Amino acid sequence: MGDTIVAVATAWAPAAIGVVRLSGPEALSILSAFWKGKPLRPRVAQLGEVRDKAGQLLDQVIVTYFPAPHSYTGEDVIEISCHGSPYILRRVVELCIERGARLARPGEFSLRAYLNRKISLDQAEAIADLIQAQSAAAHRLALSQLTGSYYEKVRRFRSQLVELLALLELELDFSEEDVEFASREQLRSLLESLNSEIVRLLSSFKMGQAIRQGIPIAIVGRPNAGKSTLLNALLSEERAIVSDIPGTTRDTVEERLFLGGYDLRLIDTAGLRETPADPIEAEGIRRTREKVKQAFLILYVFDAAHESIDEAQKHAHALLGSDKLPPILWIANKIDLLSEGTRDSSPDVLMISAKNRAGLESLSSAIIEKLNAMGADAETMISHTRHYESFIRAHESVKNALNLLRAGGGTELLAEELRLAQAAIGEITGEITSDEILGHIFSRFCIGK
Amino acid sequence: MGDTIVAVATAWAPAAIGVVRLSGPEALSILSAFWKGKPLRPRVAQLGEVRDKAGQLLDQVIVTYFPAPHSYTGEDVIEISCHGSPYILRRVVELCIERGARLARPGEFSLRAYLNRKISLDQAEAIADLIQAQSAAAHRLALSQLTGSYYEKVRRFRSQLVELLALLELELDFSEEDVEFASREQLRSLLESLNSEIVRLLSSFKMGQAIRQGIPIAIVGRPNAGKSTLLNALLSEERAIVSDIPGTTRDTVEERLFLGGYDLRLIDTAGLRETPADPIEAEGIRRTREKVKQAFLILYVFDAAHESIDEAQKHAHALLGSDKLPPILWIANKIDLLSEGTRDSSPDVLMISAKNRAGLESLSSAIIEKLNAMGADAETMISHTRHYESFIRAHESVKNALNLLRAGGGTELLAEELRLAQAAIGEITGEITSDEILGHIFSRFCIGK
Repeated sequence: MGDTIVAVATAWAPAAIGVVRLSGPEALSILSAFWKGKPLRPRVAQLGEVRDKAGQLLDQVIVTYFPAPHSYTGEDVIEISCHGSPYILRRVVELCIERGARLARPGEFSLRAYLNRKISLDQAEAIADLIQAQSAAAHRLALSQLTGSYYEKVRRFRSQLVELLALLELELDFSEEDVEFASREQLRSLLESLNSEIVRLLSSFKMGQAIRQGIPIAIVGRPNAGKSTLLNALLSEERAIVSDIPGTTRDTVEERLFLGGYDLRLIDTAGLRETPADPIEAEGIRRTREKVKQAFLILYVFDAAHESIDEAQKHAHALLGSDKLPPILWIANKIDLLSEGTRDSSPDVLMISAKNRAGLESLSSAIIEKLNAMGADAETMISHTRHYESFIRAHESVKNALNLLRAGGGTELLAEELRLAQAAIGEITGEITSDEILGHIFSRFCIGK
Repeated sequence: MGDTIVAVATAWAPAAIGVVRLSGPEALSILSAFWKGKPLRPRVAQLGEVRDKAGQLLDQVIVTYFPAPHSYTGEDVIEISCHGSPYILRRVVELCIERGARLARPGEFSLRAYLNRKISLDQAEAIADLIQAQSAAAHRLALSQLTGSYYEKVRRFRSQLVELLALLELELDFSEEDVEFASREQLRSLLESLNSEIVRLLSSFKMGQAIRQGIPIAIVGRPNAGKSTLLNALLSEERAIVSDIPGTTRDTVEERLFLGGYDLRLIDTAGLRETPADPIEAEGIRRTREKVKQAFLILYVFDAAHESIDEAQKHAHALLGSDKLPPILWIANKIDLLSEGTRDSSPDVLMISAKNRAGLESLSSAIIEKLNAMGADAETMISHTRHYESFIRAHESVKNALNLLRAGGGTELLAEELRLAQAAIGEITGEITSDEILGHIFSRFCIGK
């Protein structure tokens, strides 16, 4: 922590502007070795020049100085806004290193911000999420964790536990006097509501993670049902949106589709047949079934000119089994081949012609509706495994505490479970210290003991 | 010019920081529609929040306000430093557009800077070059044009012409009095030195352009001489430098090598044989010869175990012809196959083993030396066709003026040529007005007529 770190803070390609960021006690003195401009004043953008050791001009830059502790990291921070040339940015970083700075490790500015208590641990994670978020939903989730409802819920859980714990600790301190500061009935009611809130939050994890990483949706059907045509139709519909987001990767298995603010990973599966021709095809079908089970939604496509809905559903279940399947959207394709009268009009089935791009809007709406019904539009979700694991442990302890209460267990044991629960949640925010609990008691009750 | 433009100023990929830039009379009012933070003060970085129309938080940002005319464009400029998420940057740009901003065209901020006389036309070009420069040499060239020796030379040429012209115009004004303000002898001497400087500058154009775009170097030799091994050996030597520069494109024909501050385009040609097997191979050889002629340098590789230098040179000239060839570096490859005594030690030949990576450093030095001898390390070069064409016209007029002087031509004709010459150079800087010449006379002589 004592050293000064440096890194390019903007993306690494030619652009109008590129920013080099320095943080640490030597930031100012390192800068002054190669920068000449108006005297720096806190937070004021100053024009100047960067020159190398030989005195050669490298660039005209704008420097902004954020003195400690009112900076992102809490240390002295200097931002050097250069012409956005990768060559210049690399040379400016080299100049900083020549003068004693160290190349920052990934996330090290945020780590310092955390260590200097500018942000909490879950906020640091949220900042990383925010930068990576490519869909409205992933963005909303990151903000919820940065300053929004998730941020607040975690802290409320913890402060409730800390409060209850403080009361129990008081009881323990005054145990000779046999005082009960906390009504057991009230305690049970508070813990039960906390328990059910944690259970609800835990159930959001699978979706929260998928929103951050892309929601897998499998396109399934028999050969020639029109799966690939549908995939292409859906993708071209949204091409304009997808194409201006860099980093959009495509491979043969998955295609990425931004729809209704969600980042969807459409998985085009191999066509399924009831009677595989050989062991290799059978293995392929087994793998498709695995993929399908990991999906959040199945788009089951069938050829409406050759199958009725009933037949299609029978086939689908024969092919996929019916255990643990994700929700299915039934899609009757090739309706262009049907005469008006013979078109099936079941409300459970989407009638489309992928070829003619008919019915695609209804299909898109149906996908979004299904995802929302599965909780994808919730404001408060767990999206990180680390948080999930902490909440699992917090939940265990809360359950144990409830069992103890029901069994009339002792204050000491009860306090220990609440201590574990709040510690688990404290790991999420990164604030875990047992001093803090004492601090809480002292500040609240002014006992002075 | 009356409208307010907006664009993302940083590169378009996830990063710690991304900057959106607004410029124009409405910049402040557009920002205030979606930004909430401390009151803006000129050039002071202020923390705040961006919220969309529904009041939803989009990001925490740092805003810096550069009021007109002390900004890059000369207009009110606002820089919004966001978390570097492409999603956020796109949304912030959309918010600006919703409030009346227009998406900026490429280079439009610099265009406004030029129109508002913050920078000249050649400086605007230099800024674009600076951003694109990937080698030290290209970077030096861009800076030379931005504020350095090229910048100054262009302006000195012009001011000399304007001065001479002013004297001639005075003569014309006082023509009835038959005064000769400018000594014809002095005029001729000044024009001759100007002429030779322009000639020297014109000759730098081919190299200047190549430094900006990559210097083509052809690797030539018979089949199995080890051309590809050499190419790969050179590239892997520098891989670390090449690989961290994005935008480095490679195709089958050219490989890019950064060597001694130069951006080289190594062209691996097909192996040459004296007796092509068929018309197709003959055509291939013809094309190789064309490519070779466009190169700045030939690396002629031969198999030292099978050919002597004399044989190799004879072969090379038979294969390539000897007219208009670029300079050749003779490279005896496969010296690992030679016993110590039989190694040819001509000073004109580089002895290498591409396979064993022996002699590569000497080869690299030889390449750099050759390029420097060809003027690649000059400080002042023309690197843009637009400038080259203006200088060609300026040169024509200067030559004409000299001819007129020698022939004792009239002041009127002489003045016209100088006017054309300075106008041509004025096109380079973008300052061309005839008022200026008048202004020059008035300010210098205070004639008041």
